[in-house]
Amino acid sequence: MSDALSRPSRRAFLKGSAAMAAGTVAGAAAAQSGPDPLITELQDWASYTGAGVDETPYGMPISFESHVVRRNVEWLTASPISSINFTPIHALEGTITPQGCAFERHHSGAIELSKQDYRLMINGLVDRPLVFTYADIERFPRENHVYFCECAANTGMEWAGAQLNGAQFTHGMIHNMEYTGVPLRTLLKEAGADISADKWVYVEGADASSNGRSIPMEKALDDVLVAFKANGEALRMEHGYPVRLVVPGWEGNMWVKWLRRIEVVDGPVESREETSKYTDVYEDGTARKWTWVMDAKSVITSPSPQMPITHGKGPLVISGLAWSGHGQITRVDVSRDGGITWETARLGKQGDTKALTRFYLDVDWDGAPMLLQSRAMDETGYVQPTKAQLRDSRGENSVYHNNCIQTWYVNEQGIAENVEVS
Amino acid sequence: MSDALSRPSRRAFLKGSAAMAAGTVAGAAAAQSGPDPLITELQDWASYTGAGVDETPYGMPISFESHVVRRNVEWLTASPISSINFTPIHALEGTITPQGCAFERHHSGAIELSKQDYRLMINGLVDRPLVFTYADIERFPRENHVYFCECAANTGMEWAGAQLNGAQFTHGMIHNMEYTGVPLRTLLKEAGADISADKWVYVEGADASSNGRSIPMEKALDDVLVAFKANGEALRMEHGYPVRLVVPGWEGNMWVKWLRRIEVVDGPVESREETSKYTDVYEDGTARKWTWVMDAKSVITSPSPQMPITHGKGPLVISGLAWSGHGQITRVDVSRDGGITWETARLGKQGDTKALTRFYLDVDWDGAPMLLQSRAMDETGYVQPTKAQLRDSRGENSVYHNNCIQTWYVNEQGIAENVEVS
Repeated sequence: MSDALSRPSRRAFLKGSAAMAAGTVAGAAAAQSGPDPLITELQDWASYTGAGVDETPYGMPISFESHVVRRNVEWLTASPISSINFTPIHALEGTITPQGCAFERHHSGAIELSKQDYRLMINGLVDRPLVFTYADIERFPRENHVYFCECAANTGMEWAGAQLNGAQFTHGMIHNMEYTGVPLRTLLKEAGADISADKWVYVEGADASSNGRSIPMEKALDDVLVAFKANGEALRMEHGYPVRLVVPGWEGNMWVKWLRRIEVVDGPVESREETSKYTDVYEDGTARKWTWVMDAKSVITSPSPQMPITHGKGPLVISGLAWSGHGQITRVDVSRDGGITWETARLGKQGDTKALTRFYLDVDWDGAPMLLQSRAMDETGYVQPTKAQLRDSRGENSVYHNNCIQTWYVNEQGIAENVEVS
Repeated sequence: MSDALSRPSRRAFLKGSAAMAAGTVAGAAAAQSGPDPLITELQDWASYTGAGVDETPYGMPISFESHVVRRNVEWLTASPISSINFTPIHALEGTITPQGCAFERHHSGAIELSKQDYRLMINGLVDRPLVFTYADIERFPRENHVYFCECAANTGMEWAGAQLNGAQFTHGMIHNMEYTGVPLRTLLKEAGADISADKWVYVEGADASSNGRSIPMEKALDDVLVAFKANGEALRMEHGYPVRLVVPGWEGNMWVKWLRRIEVVDGPVESREETSKYTDVYEDGTARKWTWVMDAKSVITSPSPQMPITHGKGPLVISGLAWSGHGQITRVDVSRDGGITWETARLGKQGDTKALTRFYLDVDWDGAPMLLQSRAMDETGYVQPTKAQLRDSRGENSVYHNNCIQTWYVNEQGIAENVEVS
């Protein structure tokens, strides 16, 4: 016991460890021996009591983390009312995106709609048109699933090589949350909908844009959720409070916020949001449409332009995210030489289907420049393409569905930047 | 196409659906036919643009949800500096606890400790005492796992039948987050620790309480994490920013916050926090100690005293949480008659080991009073005991480790209260 209770020397602890000892794997300083200076050098934070719990509003991040927030790009859109901000994926870890950091895309701004005022209509090819209150929706059997939501335009500026300098801006139109909701098929059944395979549902939101989209019946009956919670709590206003659609694996534009109406229809509506927008224009001016599924994709979040290497040579954790709208991520490879050689990354844990998967490559960096890339593979056998492959097949006129391999150049100082490799 | 684009009647939608139509499963109102009043009765929120994205600080819950916050109980402790607040589990869904809602327990208040000032010492029976900076810790291979953290005193007021009126207060000293951290065994190996089976580690925090606890080597080498992120983002100050210990399945007091020192020792230290506190006093005054594991437990979160049934008879979602420090939850039963008959609940999804599992029982409530209970079972075959069974074996002098079956009485009006059944 006396051994266990005897105080260690705390000199090294108290003085800090700016000088790193050679030979330790992660550069930790060896503690130095000497007299115990505990009493005179006690740290401030160990010498007084801290903040109590008598004030209990919503808990906020510590002030030191105030840089870990969504960011927008002012020149990107004409008005902030129809704009985007970006998840700080470079600074996050694991797979869950906190609501407070999760990106937003509005087509006519975020509206404040109370549960009391909320209504959801199901009409069209149904035996019984219905209007649900929020309380009604809470009475149906509900499910919980973690899914990613990615804007179709995520990474879109890479088509023309804009090369924004940070994973937050190139890949930050994505978030990943645990949703609670009622399967759409349950509500369709309640209304006695015609669920023939050739029917569609047209979904729209209560905001001024309405953001109407057509969804084929097969998907509507599969895994679509009428969701009212994310990561356990109510959706944020900017994410469609109190109810949004969750369309797993499909482009975020279809995840209609402030969901107000579901119409069962004979065919697709060909709305603005699925014709002049959210289609992919080829080199010759023709467009491909119904490109709903977000193909397998990945990005290294650290190191990256906003997350330089600051510790010099030696052990380095390369950390990134991978996802596929077709199901599970089965493998991610990482290249340090711009795609010439590849190493298989370690998956943080087996990913959920249509959800973010964290991957790692733990390396011993020799201090030489790197061209960092990651390449995701999903359960269908699909392999994430290079930027050149994607341009070859689709040209450079597209805005949406850029899932190409991303390259970060890291120099000897550990500074990273967004580059293209041929 | 014209069919799909034709406007439905929106009268019912616009007028709301306060009057519920009989015969629909969840009480949704049938939409009424009639002229389309869309233009003159357009809702406010569809007639103007909403909030833009130009301001992007940390995203906050909508004002309507300001009641979904941690709460404290003023009389519970002598000072808020050494006190507790409670997760609003009654109002949450799914399994992930947002950091902003996650309970806190401080022994000498929450301290503000920057990453720059942070140090972690490993000393004692090690070949090489080390001091790690925060940046050092980020250089080791990291893992991600979802785990629950439950205060040993959670539900403690049920021992003597205090019967606080709300799941938040009876069971809210728990949260469940995805942690990112470095396995403790990695850092022990780095220091060349003596990892013989009879050795222990003594862990302490940088706050004034230090909150020192002894952990046997077997657990230290198993799944303990030196964690620096929760749900992807930095830990909140109140949860030990920048680094805390995560001791999966074991009582929250051992999850040392602001972790500053890990000493490898010959035996347990028998500190204040594991002798005069966090031990269980029997009827005869003797105490059991080393009761680290949180046994299988569950609670119905809705309906519950803070979540009455407001919709009357008919479809009712009974929703709750189950967890076990021994591994996975394999089954949860729900009783509506105080434990006479039981129905097997539906698990929201297969739970992670040592993490919260959501369960549901979807019933057709006839409006009669109910005595609601839930009973969790884990992969070891353990079955959550009744309050009487627990008192029989341990008396009523305990404060900690009350994992008894909870009973809510729900009357004809849907009002719920905390009761005991014999």
